[in-house]
Amino acid sequence: MSRNSMGRRLVLSSFGEANGQLIGAMLDGCPAGMELSEADIQPMLDRRRPVQSILYTQRKEGDVVKIISGTYRGRTTGAPIAMIMENQDTPSTHYELLRAYLRPGHADYTAMVKYGRFNDIRGSGRFSGRITATYVMAGAIARKLLRISLGVETCSYVQSIGTTAMAAATAGASVAAPRGGGSGSAVAYDDATIYDNDVRCPDPAAAAAMRETLLATKRRADSIGGVVQSVTTGVPVGLGEPIFGSLESDISSAMFSIPSVKGVEFGSGFAGSELCGSENNDTFALADDHDGSGGSPRIITRTNNSGGILGGISNGMPITMRVAFKPVPSLLKEQPAVNVDTMSEAPLTIKGRFDPCAVPRAPPIVDALVSLVIADHALVSGHMGPILSDEG
Amino acid sequence: MSRNSMGRRLVLSSFGEANGQLIGAMLDGCPAGMELSEADIQPMLDRRRPVQSILYTQRKEGDVVKIISGTYRGRTTGAPIAMIMENQDTPSTHYELLRAYLRPGHADYTAMVKYGRFNDIRGSGRFSGRITATYVMAGAIARKLLRISLGVETCSYVQSIGTTAMAAATAGASVAAPRGGGSGSAVAYDDATIYDNDVRCPDPAAAAAMRETLLATKRRADSIGGVVQSVTTGVPVGLGEPIFGSLESDISSAMFSIPSVKGVEFGSGFAGSELCGSENNDTFALADDHDGSGGSPRIITRTNNSGGILGGISNGMPITMRVAFKPVPSLLKEQPAVNVDTMSEAPLTIKGRFDPCAVPRAPPIVDALVSLVIADHALVSGHMGPILSDEG
Amino acid sequence: MSRNSMGRRLVLSSFGEANGQLIGAMLDGCPAGMELSEADIQPMLDRRRPVQSILYTQRKEGDVVKIISGTYRGRTTGAPIAMIMENQDTPSTHYELLRAYLRPGHADYTAMVKYGRFNDIRGSGRFSGRITATYVMAGAIARKLLRISLGVETCSYVQSIGTTAMAAATAGASVAAPRGGGSGSAVAYDDATIYDNDVRCPDPAAAAAMRETLLATKRRADSIGGVVQSVTTGVPVGLGEPIFGSLESDISSAMFSIPSVKGVEFGSGFAGSELCGSENNDTFALADDHDGSGGSPRIITRTNNSGGILGGISNGMPITMRVAFKPVPSLLKEQPAVNVDTMSEAPLTIKGRFDPCAVPRAPPIVDALVSLVIADHALVSGHMGPILSDEG
Amino acid sequence: MSRNSMGRRLVLSSFGEANGQLIGAMLDGCPAGMELSEADIQPMLDRRRPVQSILYTQRKEGDVVKIISGTYRGRTTGAPIAMIMENQDTPSTHYELLRAYLRPGHADYTAMVKYGRFNDIRGSGRFSGRITATYVMAGAIARKLLRISLGVETCSYVQSIGTTAMAAATAGASVAAPRGGGSGSAVAYDDATIYDNDVRCPDPAAAAAMRETLLATKRRADSIGGVVQSVTTGVPVGLGEPIFGSLESDISSAMFSIPSVKGVEFGSGFAGSELCGSENNDTFALADDHDGSGGSPRIITRTNNSGGILGGISNGMPITMRVAFKPVPSLLKEQPAVNVDTMSEAPLTIKGRFDPCAVPRAPPIVDALVSLVIADHALVSGHMGPILSDEG
Repeated sequence: MSRNSMGRRLVLSSFGEANGQLIGAMLDGCPAGMELSEADIQPMLDRRRPVQSILYTQRKEGDVVKIISGTYRGRTTGAPIAMIMENQDTPSTHYELLRAYLRPGHADYTAMVKYGRFNDIRGSGRFSGRITATYVMAGAIARKLLRISLGVETCSYVQSIGTTAMAAATAGASVAAPRGGGSGSAVAYDDATIYDNDVRCPDPAAAAAMRETLLATKRRADSIGGVVQSVTTGVPVGLGEPIFGSLESDISSAMFSIPSVKGVEFGSGFAGSELCGSENNDTFALADDHDGSGGSPRIITRTNNSGGILGGISNGMPITMRVAFKPVPSLLKEQPAVNVDTMSEAPLTIKGRFDPCAVPRAPPIVDALVSLVIADHALVSGHMGPILSDEG
Repeated sequence: MSRNSMGRRLVLSSFGEANGQLIGAMLDGCPAGMELSEADIQPMLDRRRPVQSILYTQRKEGDVVKIISGTYRGRTTGAPIAMIMENQDTPSTHYELLRAYLRPGHADYTAMVKYGRFNDIRGSGRFSGRITATYVMAGAIARKLLRISLGVETCSYVQSIGTTAMAAATAGASVAAPRGGGSGSAVAYDDATIYDNDVRCPDPAAAAAMRETLLATKRRADSIGGVVQSVTTGVPVGLGEPIFGSLESDISSAMFSIPSVKGVEFGSGFAGSELCGSENNDTFALADDHDGSGGSPRIITRTNNSGGILGGISNGMPITMRVAFKPVPSLLKEQPAVNVDTMSEAPLTIKGRFDPCAVPRAPPIVDALVSLVIADHALVSGHMGPILSDEG
Repeated sequence: MSRNSMGRRLVLSSFGEANGQLIGAMLDGCPAGMELSEADIQPMLDRRRPVQSILYTQRKEGDVVKIISGTYRGRTTGAPIAMIMENQDTPSTHYELLRAYLRPGHADYTAMVKYGRFNDIRGSGRFSGRITATYVMAGAIARKLLRISLGVETCSYVQSIGTTAMAAATAGASVAAPRGGGSGSAVAYDDATIYDNDVRCPDPAAAAAMRETLLATKRRADSIGGVVQSVTTGVPVGLGEPIFGSLESDISSAMFSIPSVKGVEFGSGFAGSELCGSENNDTFALADDHDGSGGSPRIITRTNNSGGILGGISNGMPITMRVAFKPVPSLLKEQPAVNVDTMSEAPLTIKGRFDPCAVPRAPPIVDALVSLVIADHALVSGHMGPILSDEG
Repeated sequence: MSRNSMGRRLVLSSFGEANGQLIGAMLDGCPAGMELSEADIQPMLDRRRPVQSILYTQRKEGDVVKIISGTYRGRTTGAPIAMIMENQDTPSTHYELLRAYLRPGHADYTAMVKYGRFNDIRGSGRFSGRITATYVMAGAIARKLLRISLGVETCSYVQSIGTTAMAAATAGASVAAPRGGGSGSAVAYDDATIYDNDVRCPDPAAAAAMRETLLATKRRADSIGGVVQSVTTGVPVGLGEPIFGSLESDISSAMFSIPSVKGVEFGSGFAGSELCGSENNDTFALADDHDGSGGSPRIITRTNNSGGILGGISNGMPITMRVAFKPVPSLLKEQPAVNVDTMSEAPLTIKGRFDPCAVPRAPPIVDALVSLVIADHALVSGHMGPILSDEG
């Protein structure tokens, strides 16, 4: 199987290079009959773009998606959906001069060994964060599919920039706030709240503080890391598998395909490792919100330290996850490096336009990948058929 | 592809249930010609067993592995290697009585929905930690293969139990200790040091403190979580892929197939998300330990916040990872539960023999899975051939 | 993915060697809730065994299947079903002496190069026809699953031995007999008719003639090939995929995993390549057997030159296929060979007990593999759920 | 895994529709460093186009391939290679009017059921023979890769049209001509000889006769089937796997992804099923053409009834295969059909430009798929590295 593909029934294949002609995605396995046009995809791609803000360099990326196969008369056909996005603003620069240098934190060295110096190094080629736009193209389709067929909603936002973090959640979509940190108590927000500011943090006070941190980092010509919180609601009970196909396995695998991601935790995660079972266990209960219509009461847990996944399988509670991003390695500061042509250590100052932080661009990427994994499991387990109804 | 299988060229397929007749593993793709007998596997399985200690209940698990296919005249043949381990000490109990109860933290509910109450619930069936012994059977082979063909050594140990943790590393296999926590600075220890105590922590003082924590937890009839640190040395440069096949993707996916794992981080991980790029970047350098034999100097990084992986591909530095385990959910305390037959909330006291903590049993499991993933990548990328030399 | 595994949702993994300790199969993906015991599998295995007949050597193979995982209280659980069959009557012979010789028609040479002479050569190891018993173990489960959930019935029988063939079909399950040969007009028979004689040919006159051919071949110490006809009825419309996942692709791939198979054709096959479109096209029609209950009339084709597959997808007509088997290469005659130790040509007389023809043992193997492929597609396309009803 | 993808290490993913905007292919896994431009691909695509001939309708297909990712400075980079070909001459017709009719021999009915009438029916969409151009795009790369790295050469040509066939081979690349038909004795021809005429048959007399057959068929407004012979030379010994990964399994699976293919046989194939073992067995021998340089003599077989594959693994002899194509179902004659809107039988006369036979267009498609499968196996088994040398 291609290592540039992900999924079993809903398969994303990614192609293209950061500064090549274009980037593209092929999504195979989407049920036939869903209304689909570029208008379903472009908004999610736009959220991934550098916002117009003093925090970010002013690129004219354009980033206009075009569906080139897989739809007919405005609906999916069951055939692979291919999409492309032309690259613009790709300076024809001196990349080959840079090839000799191993920049810290970049894939220069590993790619050099793996590909024998034949890899496309322009703008980092396949190692660029720009490749994540191919995830978003496909993920936007998966997200729509989940929403209209199952009512699943993904929600991701910036929880911390460096050490500047949102306060712990105290209310919201979570049924209860557990002690002990982690993301079990994380709450969902609507897109409008999250994308209201250029930090993509739904808490206005925290967002303001993060903005200060980002500006200070930019002034120091440095970069900084952060954490994205993800909350997915409406997931049917029973998606996932006991061992190698656990939801955590598949979602984490997807997360680590985002450049700069170095940590993933579900529910109470690392904080939960410090707890006792009597503290961390989520007690099962019957939902108070039972509608009295005569059906069985809904089974819930009173806390959500499991992050909505037990035994690798969704339990109907929100799937909560935290994703750690390292600071982007590109700095305007001089840094030590190795020149592999001369095999000597040599300082290097990289020129270019670098954002101080990639984390505010990450929420739609996380949403896209979570949507792809969950839709894949829903298709495998028969929660979605191969054909959507005409209303689909 | 089977969701009870893992890998592309070196494929583990797992079968069996906790309290069924046996558990077993089939490992396909091991090169022909490697000397192999049960003696290569049993010691690693023994490390996974509950040690004879006041910390653990005294089970007579036996756990004797038997190779039933794939070897001939003491060597691997290139055919699938199947192994089994009979289950012993499996009480013929009242499991069906328990089926009505949804125990907190267990897969009772999710399995009930997914399998329509047909799943094997004896001893948690496929959801039991016992299934990880099938990983260890196969992983022991992968570990030997890596060692003899490439000199790769995996090393995993307990870093914390609850809030009782080892002090940060200050020396050892790591070339430098980065600021900021995470596992980038983690050092490797030999097996003798790690398995010298029943906590599997190589730091004697920390081990003693962890032991006190475990005893106190046991006295409270409670359980507790912890963190395993993994350090893999000798990995060739160039294993892994840029995006979906990143080493982090494949290793994390494997880790989350261990019951109770809720978090995984590489290198500086979550701590690295709080750092600036100028702090977290690992500077490339030429190794001081160059042997002067006229070859090229070895390229290293001065710190290892990347955890040995850049752009999803190994860079030759130790692969360092931390794995968070939630506390085991089985407690001797009374806990709230739901009875799905009566659809009512009802308290439940589980009887049985429960260890206060599963983390000391985890290091060989982590070693096994890391070995399987790295050997798989080494086979895919041609670092190991389909046949080992006669000395192999 | 393991090359000893087959399938996507219903995955057979095969292990064991012809004269090793045992052979075994793991079947993953079978829905939970189906009644299953060895009694569902053994009869199909028995049909694969050499019948007690003067045609065949009198082996005491035993071949008793044992389910070792995946069932609980007499039903499938959703966990992998592992099965084994001990090898008996495995002479501890002089196999290593034979290793130097490249026998004509055998895999001696190719295995020697691929596995560096480390492969298990006892009784041909993994290259033996005995490995097909692992297909039958798993296929018997798939066949039951198809029958009880969808009413699909597979039927395979011997159509020719050497040049001795059944007359063309003139009646039966086929709606019409097309001109031009091929298997489009093939009819289905019940198991009792097929397994009534030791040739496994449902036409008594043809069976008698084939028997003469086999006896004459045996007297000449030679072997002979033949053709198996397969007819599968009751397949729902819509299984399969347009290109790489076509039913023909997946079924033919499975057929060529049977040692000795060298040709596969569907419907009118090679004979159809000699026809004009106006002759070979199957006209669509509305079924005459419409039950008048007010539903839509059933859509059929008046002939079945397509073999029940159009555009890679089942059209509801019987899936008809012919499978060509080469003569088994083991002969009691002296044959030229190469000795690779001395690197010289040398005549070789193989001693042992050889049947003159493997084709009469093939029908249950073909049935098994066809069942596995069709059940896999039915699971993928949602025609069968992950759980069978209690009556299932 | 996507069912629009094929391969394990060298993976073709196909997208696009016959009369949509474009068709495209993504090829993942090609080693880095190979010189590649459109000029390596276009000639093979041109051979698939309808030649300028009175046999074929005069389309202006254009069919110009464009590489849109995966190369840099004229060489492959190790990244996925995406290619597209715009569709031209796509009449904006009354396809929806046709949707109600189930044309004989077409996928109209099966697609209708599978995709709920949402599939793209313009020009048969994904079911069109035009999709095979995506195989040729990728296959041209695989073919170059095999040639420059291993000296493998594929060769396919038309062996018969209807009942008009080439005489049995009597000389050439085959070491000996076996009795009994099949393709074991097939010989290779160079491209110039094959593509010298519009029938793609290397035997001028047979080509002339086939041409008469085609013209007569065309005059009758009918269509006709045929057989393609494939011969691949230079394949290293040891490619393939014993059972599910046999070369025959993978090659046949690929062949049946070509619309209209209904039969595949290797070596003596169906004819071999009529033979005795003493006739069909290929005797091993030491090659007479040993160059005397002191190396080991080359091991060959004196005949090639096995078609170059023993035990699923290449034995170094030419891989010979015959592929049966049914007549194309589109006829200008009136044919019975079913109207699914009215649920009634109704005659249908299809208008359009139809060629009487697709077989002369098939040789480059067969070459492409054989090349993809063999290159895939060569990569898996380590016969080709991940990087080609600079001369590569």
